[in-house]
Amino acid sequence: MPNRTPQPTSTATTTTVVTDIEVRYAETDQMGIVHHSNYLVWFEQARTRLCLETGHHYADIEAMGYQLVVTRTESRYLRGARYGQTVSVTCWLERLSSRGLRFAYEVHHDDDKLAEGATEHVWVDVARGRPCRIPSQFEAPFRALAGR
Amino acid sequence: MPNRTPQPTSTATTTTVVTDIEVRYAETDQMGIVHHSNYLVWFEQARTRLCLETGHHYADIEAMGYQLVVTRTESRYLRGARYGQTVSVTCWLERLSSRGLRFAYEVHHDDDKLAEGATEHVWVDVARGRPCRIPSQFEAPFRALAGR
Amino acid sequence: MPNRTPQPTSTATTTTVVTDIEVRYAETDQMGIVHHSNYLVWFEQARTRLCLETGHHYADIEAMGYQLVVTRTESRYLRGARYGQTVSVTCWLERLSSRGLRFAYEVHHDDDKLAEGATEHVWVDVARGRPCRIPSQFEAPFRALAGR
Amino acid sequence: MPNRTPQPTSTATTTTVVTDIEVRYAETDQMGIVHHSNYLVWFEQARTRLCLETGHHYADIEAMGYQLVVTRTESRYLRGARYGQTVSVTCWLERLSSRGLRFAYEVHHDDDKLAEGATEHVWVDVARGRPCRIPSQFEAPFRALAGR
Repeated sequence: MPNRTPQPTSTATTTTVVTDIEVRYAETDQMGIVHHSNYLVWFEQARTRLCLETGHHYADIEAMGYQLVVTRTESRYLRGARYGQTVSVTCWLERLSSRGLRFAYEVHHDDDKLAEGATEHVWVDVARGRPCRIPSQFEAPFRALAGR
Repeated sequence: MPNRTPQPTSTATTTTVVTDIEVRYAETDQMGIVHHSNYLVWFEQARTRLCLETGHHYADIEAMGYQLVVTRTESRYLRGARYGQTVSVTCWLERLSSRGLRFAYEVHHDDDKLAEGATEHVWVDVARGRPCRIPSQFEAPFRALAGR
Repeated sequence: MPNRTPQPTSTATTTTVVTDIEVRYAETDQMGIVHHSNYLVWFEQARTRLCLETGHHYADIEAMGYQLVVTRTESRYLRGARYGQTVSVTCWLERLSSRGLRFAYEVHHDDDKLAEGATEHVWVDVARGRPCRIPSQFEAPFRALAGR
Repeated sequence: MPNRTPQPTSTATTTTVVTDIEVRYAETDQMGIVHHSNYLVWFEQARTRLCLETGHHYADIEAMGYQLVVTRTESRYLRGARYGQTVSVTCWLERLSSRGLRFAYEVHHDDDKLAEGATEHVWVDVARGRPCRIPSQFEAPFRALAGR
């Protein structure tokens, strides 16, 4: 098809999922707000939901012999979350390489942004106990998540 | 003292260990005291120390293919523990049967008793995935813990 | 309707609420199942939902100057919960007295009962820092929860 | 002493404290290693010990009406920690400004570095509910921690 304008390579868009999480009393600390360590647990719950968009629950990815081991986390805290609130955690796949990926997160309550963060992971082949390239069956679905 | 009743033959006594635990900020909740769920984690840390008295770290017992699966827990809370305190958790083996055991716990801060509790466990053979009798190599050391 | 048999005075029934909770990866332990301490946190989340049936979020009860301090917990564990599952926690008010209450819980996954438990609480007047009778504004709604 | 090379103005050195932490069973996850969120809790325990070097337990700093609210955390994970191990968390004050500070951390097990990270904090005046300059009574001791 000669003179056709080439498709832009990035019409596809990044998949974003929002997970609502009810703040638990046990998650608060004596400051009266949620202890900062719990945001990593919330990020993980949001990541679980996002992964589900690949068609595989992360539990099944592990059952197939692969893990997405956390190599790095970052969080920035803007306002405290409180018991009685339900927060929304937005998650998307920010970066994808042949051996790892980086997810990004934002936590909101109503119109307030409470926190944002990112986690980086590498693929690990459990049987061999070491990092590996992204398993071929996950390549297309994770690319799709990243909008590529 | 002629007519005195003879000493019972079981002078052996139950082994008791005391584990000091520094209260963590993350363990407090918005009441300003330690959230009650953390006592189960403290009990477990104390139980780990007590098990060590058998000559086997509990991690090694698992590595040998057995687990002491928790079947029941009970706690009574008398006073709250606070960040800045170091609490003492006393633990002993309260009951021992052929298939399970029951540990008891007391948590103190200085002269105050903060809590007491108990946990019950059954032996599980990991390879078979089901409950089993106490493995023979652990029978004598656990009996000794119980003072028998 | 003249000859109708009078309604028994206690047709009222105990209010039961069911809370669905998605198992979090962080809640599992190296046995591959949810660590037993997390059930107390789940019970609390279920209790929060039940309390909401009184018309007051528990966060508001605290804001009004009262706490329901935990004095006792019990749990029995039948089967492990796993990451990838959503469990259902049923909660109801089992006992109500002038100074405290006892909630009961059951945790299910599909048709399997995973655990059951109970927690006991006393009312505390925060300003005075000590136990008190149930505040008058909460008496009717909590009685209603208990089906009385 | 004429020809002597002048002393560098910063002979004072940064205070470093090492805190030993016994890995708790509850801290592991189904990967068989410590869940990454627990490192933030370990960092906090190490930071508590370091703060003690100022002559004030952090609990007392809060009791005096100030908080060091967490605004940012970062962690890099190199190897997993396991139940049965005791890890060492090294902590020091990496940066100090008039309104905040940054602590750095390294976690080791024997000769292996397991993780490293940092946390940033701002001073908050609790009564006013907002950020403030470092309270004057803490300025000298925190400067000393930073080796200035």
